[in-house]
Amino acid sequence: MNKAAIYHRPESEFAYLYSKENMHIRIQVAHEDIASVSLVYGDPYRWENTQNPELQSWKSMVVEMTKGLSTSVNDYFEAEVSVPTKRMDYLFVLTAIDGEKSIYTDQGVMPFSEELLTKKYAAFRFPYFHETDRAKAPEWVKKTVWYQIFPERFANGDKSNDPEGVKEWNSVENPDRQDFYGGDLQGVIEHLDHLTELGVNGIYFTPIFQAHSNHKYDTEDYLEIDKNFGDKKVFKTLIEEAHARGIKVMLDAVFNHIGDTSVQWQDVLKNQEKSKYADWFHVNSWPAAYTPMDDFENSEDATYDTFAFTPHMPKLNTANAEVQDYLLHIADYWIREFDIDAWRLDVADEVDHAFWKKFRQTCDSAKEDFYILGEVWHSAQPWLGGDEFSAVMNYAYTNAITDALVKKTLTLEQMVSAINTQLMLYRKQTNQVMFNVLDSHDTPRILTVAKGNKNLMKQVEMFTYLQPGVPCIYYGDEYALTGDMDPDCRKCMPWEKEEQDEDMFAFFKKIVAFRHEYAETLSGAALTWKIIDGKNGIVKFERGDLKAIFNIGERPAYFVGDNIILSHLVEGKNVGQFGFVVYK
Amino acid sequence: MNKAAIYHRPESEFAYLYSKENMHIRIQVAHEDIASVSLVYGDPYRWENTQNPELQSWKSMVVEMTKGLSTSVNDYFEAEVSVPTKRMDYLFVLTAIDGEKSIYTDQGVMPFSEELLTKKYAAFRFPYFHETDRAKAPEWVKKTVWYQIFPERFANGDKSNDPEGVKEWNSVENPDRQDFYGGDLQGVIEHLDHLTELGVNGIYFTPIFQAHSNHKYDTEDYLEIDKNFGDKKVFKTLIEEAHARGIKVMLDAVFNHIGDTSVQWQDVLKNQEKSKYADWFHVNSWPAAYTPMDDFENSEDATYDTFAFTPHMPKLNTANAEVQDYLLHIADYWIREFDIDAWRLDVADEVDHAFWKKFRQTCDSAKEDFYILGEVWHSAQPWLGGDEFSAVMNYAYTNAITDALVKKTLTLEQMVSAINTQLMLYRKQTNQVMFNVLDSHDTPRILTVAKGNKNLMKQVEMFTYLQPGVPCIYYGDEYALTGDMDPDCRKCMPWEKEEQDEDMFAFFKKIVAFRHEYAETLSGAALTWKIIDGKNGIVKFERGDLKAIFNIGERPAYFVGDNIILSHLVEGKNVGQFGFVVYK
Repeated sequence: MNKAAIYHRPESEFAYLYSKENMHIRIQVAHEDIASVSLVYGDPYRWENTQNPELQSWKSMVVEMTKGLSTSVNDYFEAEVSVPTKRMDYLFVLTAIDGEKSIYTDQGVMPFSEELLTKKYAAFRFPYFHETDRAKAPEWVKKTVWYQIFPERFANGDKSNDPEGVKEWNSVENPDRQDFYGGDLQGVIEHLDHLTELGVNGIYFTPIFQAHSNHKYDTEDYLEIDKNFGDKKVFKTLIEEAHARGIKVMLDAVFNHIGDTSVQWQDVLKNQEKSKYADWFHVNSWPAAYTPMDDFENSEDATYDTFAFTPHMPKLNTANAEVQDYLLHIADYWIREFDIDAWRLDVADEVDHAFWKKFRQTCDSAKEDFYILGEVWHSAQPWLGGDEFSAVMNYAYTNAITDALVKKTLTLEQMVSAINTQLMLYRKQTNQVMFNVLDSHDTPRILTVAKGNKNLMKQVEMFTYLQPGVPCIYYGDEYALTGDMDPDCRKCMPWEKEEQDEDMFAFFKKIVAFRHEYAETLSGAALTWKIIDGKNGIVKFERGDLKAIFNIGERPAYFVGDNIILSHLVEGKNVGQFGFVVYK
Repeated sequence: MNKAAIYHRPESEFAYLYSKENMHIRIQVAHEDIASVSLVYGDPYRWENTQNPELQSWKSMVVEMTKGLSTSVNDYFEAEVSVPTKRMDYLFVLTAIDGEKSIYTDQGVMPFSEELLTKKYAAFRFPYFHETDRAKAPEWVKKTVWYQIFPERFANGDKSNDPEGVKEWNSVENPDRQDFYGGDLQGVIEHLDHLTELGVNGIYFTPIFQAHSNHKYDTEDYLEIDKNFGDKKVFKTLIEEAHARGIKVMLDAVFNHIGDTSVQWQDVLKNQEKSKYADWFHVNSWPAAYTPMDDFENSEDATYDTFAFTPHMPKLNTANAEVQDYLLHIADYWIREFDIDAWRLDVADEVDHAFWKKFRQTCDSAKEDFYILGEVWHSAQPWLGGDEFSAVMNYAYTNAITDALVKKTLTLEQMVSAINTQLMLYRKQTNQVMFNVLDSHDTPRILTVAKGNKNLMKQVEMFTYLQPGVPCIYYGDEYALTGDMDPDCRKCMPWEKEEQDEDMFAFFKKIVAFRHEYAETLSGAALTWKIIDGKNGIVKFERGDLKAIFNIGERPAYFVGDNIILSHLVEGKNVGQFGFVVYK
């Protein structure tokens, strides 16, 4: 038995309340090392034969754990259990493939003995099933297909608020970093029917507050709609119209840093350490200053902390109580006054946890079932324990898919290992609401990554729609818009018929509808890998009663199944290159 | 390379701020599998040769990690690093004993390639060094030797407040569960000189608030001193006198449950679901009731949640805002009004984390460097991230010592493995303030566990004083008081000269003085095991420049060293059975 590889961590993604009364317990072992794991569990205080210390034994139950997902190096076993008294001690009994039997306790691995169980030696403990500590996922998110809008480039509905020097709307030109095209909120309102037709029911807006740049990540005033995007009246109408269509709205909060044109930072520059905002930032030595360089977005000698090395984005000191009050008021304001449904948090990992915990409480107080999405590109357990974010932008997950299916830099086996690694980082309820983006304003567009191969794009989209977590369409993808790394991925939305790829639009309509129809299965059912054949490029997996086959190879792949739900490039019983079939 | 055993977890005891600017990074590998580990780290946004995407490379630093503690199955490597920009990406380069070289990233283990480093593939991230999120340990605790007082049995200083039916004070009688002997706070005041002579500088009081039982864990009124213990005036004097002697004071808060004689529970019993306190508890079905059994402390059918199965201790619903306000007021009240220095939290693991986070904030607001000690008998990472407790009662640690040195149910090798396992569960600053008790009101006394062998008791005490964490003397141990499992371990303090073991008292004076003199070393220096020889019963370890040898075997153990600081049962250069020597 590979004892060094056995790992369990109480009160984490390895042991958590899934529902009010049901615990999920997980254990990690070495790959192909352990034949079976029994979970012995019960009330910590329940003993039998207490009159006789010799015979006294712990009153426990036993359940066989299910072998779940595997990575290239580890297997995971899982079980769902409950105890009526809402508290639980538990131990693991492991049987290796070679027959060796061990007990794994809070004190480590030891040789099996019945006495360790009856005397309940060093059991792991889940002390009480506290509903208040349970990580919760808003139900509505599980049924949502998101649509990401970069407002400056989605639609120009009001020419009167266009910025100076606005360029002519077109979806072909490669935008420069400082270009403006005049997109605004009125434009979104006018195209809500487009979203309804597509079938999406959630909009993620990149920032819409007053700011200097076209991307608005350098906020000047968090309490005002950007003057080139419209005003609060228009935004209110937009929210109402969206909600009337059953579309939720998520705004982007940039709380890690502020724009250098903001009142606060301007005051610091003017009054330096005497500024009333001096402690709102991380100024390492006065005066707050930097030497401009050729690259507008770079500085080598700023005396204050910034986002990356961008002197125009001074980092906020979120440990300062005034800053907290200011930002929490903003969080609360847009929920209470405008009824938004979710916040997406920019550079969320670089803000302190203490602040995010207060932020979560503020949002939960303002609105039930509020969704908080953090921008975290790496493993994100520290934010997903239930008292900070609901989910993160799941690049780590979707990158594995893109790397294998599109870039072919990962084998199918490596992709499955990477996907399973990600799923095992989080609780089930977290995985259900993860935000699975194949592209965004921060990445090249998926069609460009696929070198213009639309079939390949369709394949990777469908693969993603079948995963745990919720998908998001980056505006324009539905019309096969292209674009390289930003700013190129921020081209104008093609509203002229001849610029639109109708076939791609029809495809997205189909998979969005599919996602809605099978929302419950795709959210709740286990992901089970059936065939992972890197050599022939075949991957087959199941979600509940849904079966899916993807052909990543070059030769047609035969499948058996009549009840086809959705397919692409299938002829008869063969899935062609770049094709897939989903059936029951 | 045993890849399945490699484990690292960002923002946990594996990666944390130790001081304001210094990160500690830890990695787990299989025992005797890895020869060396390099940590490659740097600012996440700092790249070189950015003009040429081909040549562009991450600007990183490298440090060789130190091989630290080992368990029977795992080795741990550690490093202390810093980055001036207060943010850090990092990857591990592992070289196995067989020469195989791998890189361990946020995406798992992969074969070594220089490119993974220069392109910074899937690095782990510590996004920003937030002082506000750093787990902090009060400095004064590192220099404290605690003394635990069970007030009903320590000293009777005021006969006028004795309970009805009080028994005559004596340290021989085995107390019954319902006995009273009249101990009180005035008694403590009168014996503060005893504590000063002993050298301790912290008192941990088991509960002193108004309650029905002799142990007072069934609180009736958290805002009153128990009438048999004295009143607030006496307590105020006690605190002032203690502080004047440099002695800190820790009170015991029982917030998991309340006494059934409390106003709140009595109101529930009277008015049932109509009680204004109905939601203060976890009543599963009305009426709140139970069937009394022969065993006063047991019930099989209580319709409400209790501590264990004790119907007299109904569990508080700490998710209820009124209950929170009530308990947080209590926490604040005794700090602000009486200047206490620490709270010990009873059954702390069964209260929700959300409540403890608020409790921590309340205490931190009320007093700087406040110490919060949770009663958690099992692994306690969920409470020790920095925003709940400072430390826990470290039974898991000291049990390993007792099992090996006293009960001989563990080998020395197993003890070292168990100790190292415990140390690797927490951050260094947490281990420094862990509360290392060899006995308490909840366990048999250590001399009784040692079957009356005073030399053995001295040996295990000294061994514990040399560990990371702070020791605590359970009242009476300094006079070699005996006692089995509670209530027997709660005998009266022997104040008659002839009942006192003067030799044991002298021994404790010596080791307490030693602990104070070497507080910095014993708190900060690494624990390094040098000899673990279970066959001959020899264990040798170092704490900085202090060397210690303990003879757990039967034959004399030879040692080399002249500068002896403390020893017991040493003759010439030989440490006898039950003996030890500490030297430089």
